[in-house]
Amino acid sequence: MKSDLPRLMRERHLDALVVFGSDGLGPANAPFTYFVGDAHVTSGLVIVKANGDAYLVHHPMERDEAAKTGLQLINKAAYNLPALIQQHGGDRLAADVALMRRIFSDLGIHGRVAFYGAEHVNVSYSLLSAINQAGVCEVVAEPEHDVISVARATKDADEVDHIRRTCQLTETLIGETRDYLRGHRLAGQALHKPDGQPLTVADVKRFIRTRACALGLEMGDCIFAVGRDAGVPHSSGTPGAPITVGRTIVFDIFPRGPGGYHCDITRTWCLGDAPAHVWQAYELVKQAHALAESRFNTTDYTYAFNEAVCELFEANGYPTIRQDYAATRGYVHGLGHGFGLAVHEAPAISLKGLRPDEKFQVGSVFCSEPGLYDPDDPRGGWGVRIEDDYWCTPEGRFERLTTFDHDLVIPLAR
Amino acid sequence: MKSDLPRLMRERHLDALVVFGSDGLGPANAPFTYFVGDAHVTSGLVIVKANGDAYLVHHPMERDEAAKTGLQLINKAAYNLPALIQQHGGDRLAADVALMRRIFSDLGIHGRVAFYGAEHVNVSYSLLSAINQAGVCEVVAEPEHDVISVARATKDADEVDHIRRTCQLTETLIGETRDYLRGHRLAGQALHKPDGQPLTVADVKRFIRTRACALGLEMGDCIFAVGRDAGVPHSSGTPGAPITVGRTIVFDIFPRGPGGYHCDITRTWCLGDAPAHVWQAYELVKQAHALAESRFNTTDYTYAFNEAVCELFEANGYPTIRQDYAATRGYVHGLGHGFGLAVHEAPAISLKGLRPDEKFQVGSVFCSEPGLYDPDDPRGGWGVRIEDDYWCTPEGRFERLTTFDHDLVIPLAR
Repeated sequence: MKSDLPRLMRERHLDALVVFGSDGLGPANAPFTYFVGDAHVTSGLVIVKANGDAYLVHHPMERDEAAKTGLQLINKAAYNLPALIQQHGGDRLAADVALMRRIFSDLGIHGRVAFYGAEHVNVSYSLLSAINQAGVCEVVAEPEHDVISVARATKDADEVDHIRRTCQLTETLIGETRDYLRGHRLAGQALHKPDGQPLTVADVKRFIRTRACALGLEMGDCIFAVGRDAGVPHSSGTPGAPITVGRTIVFDIFPRGPGGYHCDITRTWCLGDAPAHVWQAYELVKQAHALAESRFNTTDYTYAFNEAVCELFEANGYPTIRQDYAATRGYVHGLGHGFGLAVHEAPAISLKGLRPDEKFQVGSVFCSEPGLYDPDDPRGGWGVRIEDDYWCTPEGRFERLTTFDHDLVIPLAR
Repeated sequence: MKSDLPRLMRERHLDALVVFGSDGLGPANAPFTYFVGDAHVTSGLVIVKANGDAYLVHHPMERDEAAKTGLQLINKAAYNLPALIQQHGGDRLAADVALMRRIFSDLGIHGRVAFYGAEHVNVSYSLLSAINQAGVCEVVAEPEHDVISVARATKDADEVDHIRRTCQLTETLIGETRDYLRGHRLAGQALHKPDGQPLTVADVKRFIRTRACALGLEMGDCIFAVGRDAGVPHSSGTPGAPITVGRTIVFDIFPRGPGGYHCDITRTWCLGDAPAHVWQAYELVKQAHALAESRFNTTDYTYAFNEAVCELFEANGYPTIRQDYAATRGYVHGLGHGFGLAVHEAPAISLKGLRPDEKFQVGSVFCSEPGLYDPDDPRGGWGVRIEDDYWCTPEGRFERLTTFDHDLVIPLAR
């Protein structure tokens, strides 16, 4: 959590952290959002010194939004970029390096400085290379397990409150979506609208988007994939596809809610009833879900929970990517991942070969999402995934944050 | 436009472009969106060769979404990252470099490769430095006027169609918002809701968000700033502030619409009537707006249009940042900017000292947004901005894409 930053910086001998706030990336730039919060700061630079002092270099037009962050403010206009550009004969990159040198000098920063935040790579690579070469500081760029990712991997009480609320709102939305489906008339094998046209995935997604907005959830897209599409885990669904009886529907939704925090929840549904092979997969996925939940602890490496699920699936005849990394049938993804300001954060709960060194800690917030898939099953492609969210409490207990039922079948009145 | 890419790559002796699609950045990563379009590809790598062949390296779970892009597909699983990590003794960065080397080798790419797209800077700086050092290719990272920004600075017919539609939808929303304000009862100096509570900026923003969603527009935030807040150009507004008579309201909205294309429109309103000093500023801003519109051409540098507006404002006694870069009163920003998949794209229409070398071209799409501000005016802080959008047609004509009236006053029935 954020309170770990001073210790993490000390351990890595960092004099400062710099977080880029790149224009246009907005809340998607989670490391920047981690510091500026809800304030509508569209660009800027967060600087955290080893002594804990935290600054925001902001555009003067954004001074009101900057003030909402609680960071110490540095007005970028005071450094007069046009004058710096002129001094450097029109060389914009040289001017940007000079700007950084002056800011660092004013803040007494030198030595090892770690850089974070999302930025266009042509811009950031040029600037960091030039800063390093010019000796403005020693540029530190850890590609993984970096200070901010490690801090963000555990959540404090405020963050958990936000995530809990996002889970609740999202479960309300999931319930409304099921009611919406139920409210449609079955004609032949598909749901139909009052105007006699078949209800499509696009219609359902429009409903979901509208209700998400009304509930105060921000959402780019979600997965609402039917039948064969449900068999490809990240297929977002075919807009024109009808909602038909007896086909699996994978509904995976990961909106951004209060405080900018996400949740990540999946339910699998079948209208009317499910075929026997889907029931079989569903029961096994439920078993894997419960097995994982019963195993979570802060002692084992996270890959161990994924291995336990792989073993269960393999023992029941389903392939896994542990056996064949290119598999597209069976259990074809990892067990889960942390989330927070981003949908994917540390820790991963994945293959040992990809993530050999992560453990749950007090404050970990993550999803567990076992699934089975067969898009090319001759009986009709299908996918089953059940995804719930967890928090490791200060007492080391794994609390499930999501409570929506796992029912597979949505009963229909004909 | 995209069809310029082969020529631009030739001119800069580039063997390939690589565009990072970073997990979690989504449509905010405009260079990636430029190639993958509407497809819900959450991560990946776009590679464009000098001969025009374009590829998407994708996660196997995203093969359906990848197929929607029309790019040639490369399944990342075929390169077996866990095996590469093992071969490199657990060194993830070395494995990532090896992965890139193999992909480049399979595609026959060597020599100068330019890198683009938004990515977390600790990840991208590590990887690009390592790739460069390992001699996988010569890493080219132009910090500005890079190939993709230059291509994106002019829009083709399809892009203009999308932008036109986004403008229309947004103007519908602006009209609905004005009607919404008008539909509220004035009590004392402020608008009130049927329940007797004052209407607040938060209420208005909730209405705007809900209607945006219904119209199919995606929107993070917008500026709805009243009185003193309107005097700080990027203040997004105070949520609890009432909507009061005779205070300027700056309403600046820049949602993402069809095809992922933005527009950027501002109107300034006063409920009931406006004080004399606001009328004076408003008339001058209208004059500046018309002056700029009458001047746009493809011959002058874009800063010249900004200078013309500065001269008009200065001649009328208003300060500008041309005179004092740290000014917070008067004309405190540039005249405008290109937009498209991002809200801010080339060209800038700004100070000569910041952008000395840009011109409009056939296909330029941009906004013009003159404004005047005085947040600390003892008569009450205020701001006035009028922003419309333009396209330079194939015939070199500057077509205004926005048509919403510029009326300052919203008449109220008491």
